[in-house]
Amino acid sequence: MSAGAPSLAAPLAITLGDPAGIGPEVILGAWARLRAERRAPPAFVVGGPELLRSCGERLGIDFPIVPVADPAEAMFACAVGLPVLAGLDGLLTPSRPSLEGARLALASLQWGVKFALSEVAVGLVTAPISKAELAAIGWDYPGQTEFLADACRRPYRDAVMMLAGPSLRTVPLTVHVALAEVPGLISADLIIHKARIIVAGLKRDFNVMHPRLAIAALNPHAGEGGKFGDEDTRIIAPAIAALQAEGIAAFGPVPGDALFTQRARQGYDAALCMYHDQALIPLKALDFDEGVNVTLGLPIIRTSPDHGTAFDIAGKGLADPGAMAAAIVMAAEIAAARAAAA
Amino acid sequence: MSAGAPSLAAPLAITLGDPAGIGPEVILGAWARLRAERRAPPAFVVGGPELLRSCGERLGIDFPIVPVADPAEAMFACAVGLPVLAGLDGLLTPSRPSLEGARLALASLQWGVKFALSEVAVGLVTAPISKAELAAIGWDYPGQTEFLADACRRPYRDAVMMLAGPSLRTVPLTVHVALAEVPGLISADLIIHKARIIVAGLKRDFNVMHPRLAIAALNPHAGEGGKFGDEDTRIIAPAIAALQAEGIAAFGPVPGDALFTQRARQGYDAALCMYHDQALIPLKALDFDEGVNVTLGLPIIRTSPDHGTAFDIAGKGLADPGAMAAAIVMAAEIAAARAAAA
Repeated sequence: MSAGAPSLAAPLAITLGDPAGIGPEVILGAWARLRAERRAPPAFVVGGPELLRSCGERLGIDFPIVPVADPAEAMFACAVGLPVLAGLDGLLTPSRPSLEGARLALASLQWGVKFALSEVAVGLVTAPISKAELAAIGWDYPGQTEFLADACRRPYRDAVMMLAGPSLRTVPLTVHVALAEVPGLISADLIIHKARIIVAGLKRDFNVMHPRLAIAALNPHAGEGGKFGDEDTRIIAPAIAALQAEGIAAFGPVPGDALFTQRARQGYDAALCMYHDQALIPLKALDFDEGVNVTLGLPIIRTSPDHGTAFDIAGKGLADPGAMAAAIVMAAEIAAARAAAA
Repeated sequence: MSAGAPSLAAPLAITLGDPAGIGPEVILGAWARLRAERRAPPAFVVGGPELLRSCGERLGIDFPIVPVADPAEAMFACAVGLPVLAGLDGLLTPSRPSLEGARLALASLQWGVKFALSEVAVGLVTAPISKAELAAIGWDYPGQTEFLADACRRPYRDAVMMLAGPSLRTVPLTVHVALAEVPGLISADLIIHKARIIVAGLKRDFNVMHPRLAIAALNPHAGEGGKFGDEDTRIIAPAIAALQAEGIAAFGPVPGDALFTQRARQGYDAALCMYHDQALIPLKALDFDEGVNVTLGLPIIRTSPDHGTAFDIAGKGLADPGAMAAAIVMAAEIAAARAAAA
């Protein structure tokens, strides 16, 4: 463990992601950066020692890969290099997704979850997978977040995706659905459910003792008094009133375009947005190379860089490891916060 | 005229906006800033000499208001202060919208348009109005842009609202409509129509000789191959192909959250977005205090600061005049570009 990293009871598990994507290279790049800055927490990669070794050689990242047989070894092995669980591996071509690669990605994810659930790992950092490739081998989930909810035996709606960067934190109420379906999916019940999980998560995992939650409007100008759309007054405003009645510092509905100005961002700890792009546009515009996807509402800690497999640039050394580094650091900080509270 | 400002054949007309809003104070603040930086173009305010004088006194902005009887006087009057057209005035209370204020705002706008159409003014810079207040005196337009289209005898859809800041330029395809209506309003015809106006505007008014136009997807991840919504493949992609066939460098549909990263912004001169918040969220997140609303597709030049009346902070000296200053400078630059091309 390095000097600037929090002290943890067990290492973090980092999954490989799709080996044809940028996962392996951003893991290596992030680790190299965190090591150099003395901020690397104890961690290990779930599989791929040969894969990572060849990836490091190709990109000229020169530090030792330390194959370990047991995650517990990672606690001291990370003093000499990047601990990588042996016994699960492959040699794959960047930018060339394959069924073999998808199987490796899935095995890494499945083992990672097992380690986190059994507390062999204090938390899980997932590299990006390809849903299309995983679907081809029979994996039937909208994304890793839902897979994790299932593994934790929780309903999907308990697993709340929060995007966190240096400038802001956002949560999309609805996620991977057509825009046309969004208005029909918004309900006071769903807003209240997710808002409670966000507030609990900010308290438990982010040391925000009195979370202020901004809630976005669905329609432009919040519908301007019902002139264009009534969801803001009919559904969102009553949900906010109900949250306030239970003591949650929620406010809104704030028109989307007013919610992310530099000044507005000072007024809340997280913004609950009504749909995918409303939450992800400002996050990626402001914090792209440092955006972390953190899953709230599950018993296990899980973070992920806020980018995809980027098959088109994989293996070229172009991928910025900043978001993966931020995801690793955030998982460690959350683990430390939970340990301190326990 | 100041040294750093373009040479113009006639002054710009600046409308007052709602006198109870921040319009008057940002006009004064912008003018003071541009004068100090020697970037103030010849311009005059359409009405309100007493109103502006008392506003300046209240805020401690100390430079002369020069009442003029004829806009032509502004060309030399602006050497000694801010030229303001006499004969149209009021003394109004900040933060207290009133019918009298709405009437003054409307008269200022109506005269401003007349000056621009008759070339007494080279262009129009509009301060924010309150649609609710104007509706109360019988004004029946969705916004100033549509009013201007009408005054220019053009259909609304020819008046294209572009938001321009230092970081990016965006255009919303649909504007003040409920989000639920957006998918039904998107058509290849409308995309092609607006894209042509944007490209022509970038060439004529912004000296962009070969405009690159990014076109946003409607659905998250552009629908991920039809999994959530088919508008991107069924409507937007064919529209882009048609634009490319006529030689326009359009590309997309780009998923909304991928379109505004710092890297992505280098790849286009403007982004055509599918709805209000998709266009305005990134602009205001990145460029709030410098965002300009510029109307493309009309014979007259028109810019406006990208903010509203902000009745809640009016008269307190809190409003940032940056966007108004940027709107004035942009109108002058467009006028100079058109003059150079003529």
